Amino acid sequence: MTPAFAALAALLGDRFTTADAIRAEHAQSETHIAAGLPDAVAFPETTAEVSALLTIAHEHRLPVIGWGAGTSLEGHALAVQGGITVNFARMAQVLEVRAEDMLVRVQPGLTREALNTELRATGLFFPVDPGANASLGGMAATRASGTTAVRYGTMRDAVLGLEAVLADGTVIRTGTAAPKSASGYDLTALLVGSEGTLALITELTLRLQGQPEAVSAAVCTFADMAAAVDCVIETIQSGIAMARIEFLDPTAVAACNAYAGQSLPEAPLLLVEFHGSPAAVAEQAQRFGEIAAGHGSTGFRWADRAEDRAALWKMRHAAYPACLAAHPGATAVVTDVCVPISRLAEAVQETRAEIAASAIPGPILGHVGDGNFHAILLIAKDNPAEAAEAKRLAANMATRALRLGGTVTGEHGIGLGKLAYMQAEHGAGWAVMGAVKRALDPLGILNPGKLVPQ
Amino acid sequence: MTPAFAALAALLGDRFTTADAIRAEHAQSETHIAAGLPDAVAFPETTAEVSALLTIAHEHRLPVIGWGAGTSLEGHALAVQGGITVNFARMAQVLEVRAEDMLVRVQPGLTREALNTELRATGLFFPVDPGANASLGGMAATRASGTTAVRYGTMRDAVLGLEAVLADGTVIRTGTAAPKSASGYDLTALLVGSEGTLALITELTLRLQGQPEAVSAAVCTFADMAAAVDCVIETIQSGIAMARIEFLDPTAVAACNAYAGQSLPEAPLLLVEFHGSPAAVAEQAQRFGEIAAGHGSTGFRWADRAEDRAALWKMRHAAYPACLAAHPGATAVVTDVCVPISRLAEAVQETRAEIAASAIPGPILGHVGDGNFHAILLIAKDNPAEAAEAKRLAANMATRALRLGGTVTGEHGIGLGKLAYMQAEHGAGWAVMGAVKRALDPLGILNPGKLVPQ
Repeated sequence: MTPAFAALAALLGDRFTTADAIRAEHAQSETHIAAGLPDAVAFPETTAEVSALLTIAHEHRLPVIGWGAGTSLEGHALAVQGGITVNFARMAQVLEVRAEDMLVRVQPGLTREALNTELRATGLFFPVDPGANASLGGMAATRASGTTAVRYGTMRDAVLGLEAVLADGTVIRTGTAAPKSASGYDLTALLVGSEGTLALITELTLRLQGQPEAVSAAVCTFADMAAAVDCVIETIQSGIAMARIEFLDPTAVAACNAYAGQSLPEAPLLLVEFHGSPAAVAEQAQRFGEIAAGHGSTGFRWADRAEDRAALWKMRHAAYPACLAAHPGATAVVTDVCVPISRLAEAVQETRAEIAASAIPGPILGHVGDGNFHAILLIAKDNPAEAAEAKRLAANMATRALRLGGTVTGEHGIGLGKLAYMQAEHGAGWAVMGAVKRALDPLGILNPGKLVPQ
Repeated sequence: MTPAFAALAALLGDRFTTADAIRAEHAQSETHIAAGLPDAVAFPETTAEVSALLTIAHEHRLPVIGWGAGTSLEGHALAVQGGITVNFARMAQVLEVRAEDMLVRVQPGLTREALNTELRATGLFFPVDPGANASLGGMAATRASGTTAVRYGTMRDAVLGLEAVLADGTVIRTGTAAPKSASGYDLTALLVGSEGTLALITELTLRLQGQPEAVSAAVCTFADMAAAVDCVIETIQSGIAMARIEFLDPTAVAACNAYAGQSLPEAPLLLVEFHGSPAAVAEQAQRFGEIAAGHGSTGFRWADRAEDRAALWKMRHAAYPACLAAHPGATAVVTDVCVPISRLAEAVQETRAEIAASAIPGPILGHVGDGNFHAILLIAKDNPAEAAEAKRLAANMATRALRLGGTVTGEHGIGLGKLAYMQAEHGAGWAVMGAVKRALDPLGILNPGKLVPQ
């Protein structure tokens, strides 16, 4: 055992391990990306332990990679240069609920579902909903969002402050418990989305939302994708406050039906939800119905009962495993582009046409209220030709998004999958990111190989 | 003339000047803070000129300070180490209105009122409203907010992307026209609030909002400040979507009445406004009325006519000159604390009591929906004893805000007035800000003497 590992073992006891099985668990990803076996895995229980761990790693120049729930779709947490993966499973507590201030302090390993379970009695909830039961630290590190961002924003909006440990073990606190501040550089926003390359997050202060008095959800179908997307655009521009507005194409609907035992019409589909007072929800739903009718929508089904809505969103959240299940033995290249709303129809239609012309199945679905959509490109494992074709389609989606004024990732982040597009998206700004990285982590020990120019 | 000035004169012609009168205009501030005569003033017309100017300044290690409309209350744009003040008055165009995407591209010298005039026919408006007719570049640089932040957010939320010129003349673009992104460090958020110390902003992409179908505003009075603040807290926690909720104490009301020729009751006052569909506004107003009545509110006056609302908000926006006018010959120390909503009543009451026990008049008013309030401490010019007393009161407000979990500035920024509190508010995070500054501006030419450790 090296001196560094001996020091870490002395610090953490059996919560520092080099066991093969544990290391292998942390070299997996949810997608086709799989690489990077860490040399060891640590399970700290306190900020002080994280700080001590980083002090040792810094002294010995060992890579350190944060790990939340392992639900990343772009391989963010894979130890591509070895080193120590820091699993936050033992830092998963709700530290303080401040209902009056509508905020909560939590540890990074807590999952969003566990947080919402804890909040049930308070009348408040945490709205950011990426589908997967991700850890809140991981969601902050990747600037995650999901189905409710159109109403409640992304992790950029939900994180009010952080405690984080820098590469050399220094603990910093960013933000305050006040609703806003004009005090200095926005270090909270700098760390949110930094993918573990600037600091390890050890505590989050999160904004909560009041549980809506009334909720109404609906499913409606359209003759074609363009009509559905145009309906979304008109709804947004009408100022109707949607809580969710999700698109599924017919192949995605078919996969969900098969996986979840539903019987939704296998047509271009919008799932929409409204939150507010009973009167406001009724008014929003009525106005949306009128707009949808104007775009030829049929098959309108309202889900006013809580259990029907729960089934609907459970089905939507299971779209990814449903698509995988529809092609036994397949793995996926998951795409994640986001474009200006005015270019959404064009982006989706060009993508659909290109996938249709290829041999790769690629259901499309997305958070279309944000201009954000995904094609799930399904490929056989260990089939280099299919992998190459999927990567070609994904690359075209990314460059198309940039050409239309958008971004190569709306919510999944860069990880390993999107690093190749950073220069094209950010130009000279990417070098600025590299300068910030070197300023905060001059030895380059935090999640090396990721996000910044190498 | 030095070689640097000769090069700048060759670049800009008579738009580069060392004339005493012009330099003196750029050594003024709206408050008691006045210091820092620049050596020259430049009036660039293009990004290329700003880049060339910075290239020259960088080569010769000259300080460069951005200047918008000069409405800062903390002396942000004062040239405390001499150098070149860059006035953006000639870069004040609307570059592109993208109504479908609800965004606009503008130059930094454009003021928020000029932008809203240009937007009138589009059905859209730019919501951030600090009162003063500030430049949009300055508002971004200081992370400004104002009366509507409770509904529409601050400049942190309103700025979707920037073009900016780094210290060495490099032009970068941050953000995209897509509604969200998870692509790399959030350089937009890093520059918003950086007070000209990291880059000069040369273009902004701003989110717009739909003009509400219906607007309703009201004034209501309370027996005491605690009742008014408790009404605000309950309203927020009830999830009522206020567009504005402003507090004025009796001395602030009296000053506004005298200045604007109004006759509002000289009592603790809330001004509130609702935006939405006619039905939603009616419902919100009714629910607010019930909550206010529960806190003993009287003197409810509704302003449903647009001209009445315009008069009301004009009066509110003129509160600062009104307070100055009530004390002829006075200047002001303007304070700007922001605390968690749960601590707002405590913060306002302690502040009120301390001002009442002093000899300095100090009307209190604020954007209480954000936990943000100001005391305008009025002192005679050139009276060191009064200045010292005002600074003592201001210091106590700042340290009280920190003790209550808040921030020393909700919206005015750091400038010269709050630099002394950075270490107390940010701790080790302040050194991180210094590291970021050195990474982006290693020679320290951008607004030297401000924001970061010196």
